[in-house]
Amino acid sequence: MTAQHTPPLRWYGWGDRDTVPPPALLRLLQDELGGGGEVVSQPVPQSEVRLPDPALSDRLRRRLAATVGAANLGRGPEDRLSHATGRSYLDLLALRAGRLEEAPDAVVRPASVQEIARVLKVCSEDGCAVVPFGGGTSVVGGVAPHHAGRHALVSLALERFDAVLDVDDESLLATLQAGMRGPAVEAKLAQRGLTLGHFPQSFEYASVGGFAATRSAGQASSGFGRFDEMVRGLTLVAPHGELALRAHPPDAAGPSVLQMALGSEGTLGVITDVTVRVRPRARLRHYAAWSFADMDSGVAALRDLSLRHRVPDVTRLSDAEETRVSLAMAGDRATTRAARRYLRLRGHGGGCLAILGWEGAGSDIGTRKRLAVQVLRRHGAVALGTAPGRAWLHSRFEAPYLRDSLLDRALLVETLETASTWSRLPRVRDAVIGALRTALSRRGTPPLVGYHISHVYPEGASLYFTVLARQEDGNQVAQWLEAKRAATDAIVGAGGTLTHHHAVGLDHAPWMSAQVGAVGIDAIRALRSALDPAGIMNPGKLIPYPVSDSNR
Amino acid sequence: MTAQHTPPLRWYGWGDRDTVPPPALLRLLQDELGGGGEVVSQPVPQSEVRLPDPALSDRLRRRLAATVGAANLGRGPEDRLSHATGRSYLDLLALRAGRLEEAPDAVVRPASVQEIARVLKVCSEDGCAVVPFGGGTSVVGGVAPHHAGRHALVSLALERFDAVLDVDDESLLATLQAGMRGPAVEAKLAQRGLTLGHFPQSFEYASVGGFAATRSAGQASSGFGRFDEMVRGLTLVAPHGELALRAHPPDAAGPSVLQMALGSEGTLGVITDVTVRVRPRARLRHYAAWSFADMDSGVAALRDLSLRHRVPDVTRLSDAEETRVSLAMAGDRATTRAARRYLRLRGHGGGCLAILGWEGAGSDIGTRKRLAVQVLRRHGAVALGTAPGRAWLHSRFEAPYLRDSLLDRALLVETLETASTWSRLPRVRDAVIGALRTALSRRGTPPLVGYHISHVYPEGASLYFTVLARQEDGNQVAQWLEAKRAATDAIVGAGGTLTHHHAVGLDHAPWMSAQVGAVGIDAIRALRSALDPAGIMNPGKLIPYPVSDSNR
Repeated sequence: MTAQHTPPLRWYGWGDRDTVPPPALLRLLQDELGGGGEVVSQPVPQSEVRLPDPALSDRLRRRLAATVGAANLGRGPEDRLSHATGRSYLDLLALRAGRLEEAPDAVVRPASVQEIARVLKVCSEDGCAVVPFGGGTSVVGGVAPHHAGRHALVSLALERFDAVLDVDDESLLATLQAGMRGPAVEAKLAQRGLTLGHFPQSFEYASVGGFAATRSAGQASSGFGRFDEMVRGLTLVAPHGELALRAHPPDAAGPSVLQMALGSEGTLGVITDVTVRVRPRARLRHYAAWSFADMDSGVAALRDLSLRHRVPDVTRLSDAEETRVSLAMAGDRATTRAARRYLRLRGHGGGCLAILGWEGAGSDIGTRKRLAVQVLRRHGAVALGTAPGRAWLHSRFEAPYLRDSLLDRALLVETLETASTWSRLPRVRDAVIGALRTALSRRGTPPLVGYHISHVYPEGASLYFTVLARQEDGNQVAQWLEAKRAATDAIVGAGGTLTHHHAVGLDHAPWMSAQVGAVGIDAIRALRSALDPAGIMNPGKLIPYPVSDSNR
Repeated sequence: MTAQHTPPLRWYGWGDRDTVPPPALLRLLQDELGGGGEVVSQPVPQSEVRLPDPALSDRLRRRLAATVGAANLGRGPEDRLSHATGRSYLDLLALRAGRLEEAPDAVVRPASVQEIARVLKVCSEDGCAVVPFGGGTSVVGGVAPHHAGRHALVSLALERFDAVLDVDDESLLATLQAGMRGPAVEAKLAQRGLTLGHFPQSFEYASVGGFAATRSAGQASSGFGRFDEMVRGLTLVAPHGELALRAHPPDAAGPSVLQMALGSEGTLGVITDVTVRVRPRARLRHYAAWSFADMDSGVAALRDLSLRHRVPDVTRLSDAEETRVSLAMAGDRATTRAARRYLRLRGHGGGCLAILGWEGAGSDIGTRKRLAVQVLRRHGAVALGTAPGRAWLHSRFEAPYLRDSLLDRALLVETLETASTWSRLPRVRDAVIGALRTALSRRGTPPLVGYHISHVYPEGASLYFTVLARQEDGNQVAQWLEAKRAATDAIVGAGGTLTHHHAVGLDHAPWMSAQVGAVGIDAIRALRSALDPAGIMNPGKLIPYPVSDSNR
């Protein structure tokens, strides 16, 4: 995917096309979940979607139109609908059912920092809430038009912030406007022989501003760094004023104001540009698959790679359950059958698949791969060659497309993530899987739960769970809420992070005090109060603020 | 240096012993500065040091004594003097002259988080300022007992927080109390086969809490990471309450509260413990010296090493001026003479010395060194062997001892540091050197200015300047103030960071708005206001706060 102009997300789901799940996957789901074989559910026609009546006062409408131009103030149902949700499971349920409890009263599309400053001034004076909107791909309610008691709410769309402002080839820094989506960034940087190397699953639609506002991590973050490590400077326009942090190496000048802006999820202001570390484009890519006899040996290998500073740029280890589903998805290809046969012979019948990827100059890759392979072999890993690695690379943004097609088949499809120290990892994993199985089985919809590790740190790793179950007919929302609550309680109870890379949004806000404590909440609240005195920025997200906020 | 118990700093300077400067260095200084050959200045006898009268009310004294025990409330002149300064050039001038404008009214030595919480409560109610005090090694006035209008001030000494609270061998995390000094940390960890690997020049005296509160960087930070990268969790006791952040891998849960506590310099509360990344102790160390024909080729090599992820754990490149002084200090040893001869033959007569160090398992070091050497040779570096590398390793904590002996000889000795992107590096360097030369020459004391790069990042590097000049008799403070002001104006004017690792303290606070802008200042002020509502924590440091604060 290198197209510079991403087609719009279709209104009720992901991408711009239908995906047909592999027949082998549907057979597996039918066998194990007792459902998912047939298409039984379709989104309502777009014309039947009901939005709440818009509540923009004439005065505010006039003032906003005067600021950005009437053409850049969207008040029609299409604009409001396309900014009414992110792409969480609950969002998709609501969209497909055509029932949206909240929507922005208008969509504002400013073109400059000055226009944003004026929009925030006007909205502060009016008491109108403002939700910064980049790619709209949040899976935690991060862009939900949650009025939280405010009489009006506008989505502030960043699509006109779509330029590369500067490239410093010598320092390998690029200043990118916040509205740029992943493919546009890579296409523009490629013209200079550079790459950003940030590839979350939402890459095709997510925006640079969203990456920064949510501390995004991508599939290659083991090698290229998390987005919050890449960002060296930024501009954030707050109602209180403009925070312009010039890019420079790390410093010792007080509490990190940069790290206050990163992860602020639109609650402090609008991130309009970021200056990020870039790299020369890889001259070579090497992606390969390996198999481990079990998860214990795989995890030990990852820890060992980390200890020796030999972690590949992409490092991804699936448990036996996820491996089984992946192989079913790879389907009936000859290579997959051969791989399965080979693994049975090597005693990896129920093994765990690892995808490892190196990117860079040819000689560097050779050396780094050789050093990593020494460690892999010590832990009993078996090489499966480059074909499955290339297949993964080719299909790495496919899951959200597939999700739509599984929703068509009345399946609950959800992903959850956390991170933990190595010593707590087994406990966190067992707690989450147990909580999901118990919660969903109790409701008569026993799930399939698999997980993978895709981000490795010296002290621990991420855990990313995929849950599949039959939808509970007529109770889809309650079913999800119970499972989500059980899993999140399990995560924080066992000492995992509240979120490793999906961020907080509305969905995780009730658990924030488990992450940072009451004093941490007060610190964040103080920042909000200073930068957004009128309390208009993305209400309800991150932490309850002001105290009158309620979470959904 | 692995002694677990560091002897106390002598009252007027560094360490516990005299150092005699190498004769070749004294000859060089005499030749080029026209001074520094003879001992002409001695500290006054300790008995003649004048401290301001203590201003602790009886009521506050009783309440503090009831909290920590009378034995842990130091009110005598020795306690007050040993907590009256850090170890900046101005501090040393004041100590040696026996004239201290401010001193703590008492020194409180709590033993637990609960005692600290009570001390902060008592002091908040009383309006008494509190200065957290670890190793007392700040060179920027970070522990100055600056009353800033408060009627009383106590230093809160952390020396009783001296334990390793926990070691997680699997996750390679250790929880260290804030009062531990460098050598004690390494000695305790060595018992478990571990190392922290944090070696700032102040290592022997600086404390863990100070490392965290100032975002310290050490000589091996290119390999082991800056201290703010090592810290994964911490406890900070604020007047508003206790912030306890459990250690875990990086996360996406909002603005980083951890990164608000790091670098807070005692202005938000007292850091009582940190959980840091540790590593298995190196089985091997390899330190070697290399020479570059000039600074341009040396800088290009460092940038290239960074780009290829081949930066040695210790990476240190001195300019020709610093190299010349270093060689003079290495003095008349046969190896030094041989090295000089060899370099002249290779056309590196006025060359730049690099010290490169690798630590780890034997096979790892071999590979990493080989890969780095490929890059070094491409930039024309000439190997000088391991003898100068080992000599550097042996003497790497010596500079502050030497400083005392140069003060005895009426020399101004100061170090200044910043960091910059690669593209701005030459401009920042030239601006700082030019500003120092102009400011000091104008006063009739032309300086010797050398610099080195000791921390390398993908986007740039640190710059560390050493300034030597004759003291301006009778005007030592004004002389320093003018040079410092000129250099700092030059740093921020040319786009360098206000500080790379010395932190802000009192000395850099007037320039903080150049670093983070007015909105950044307001963000920090809001945090202080939330965590320290009475405004008692380390007043005058970091930013002017409350607004009534004046900087010295």
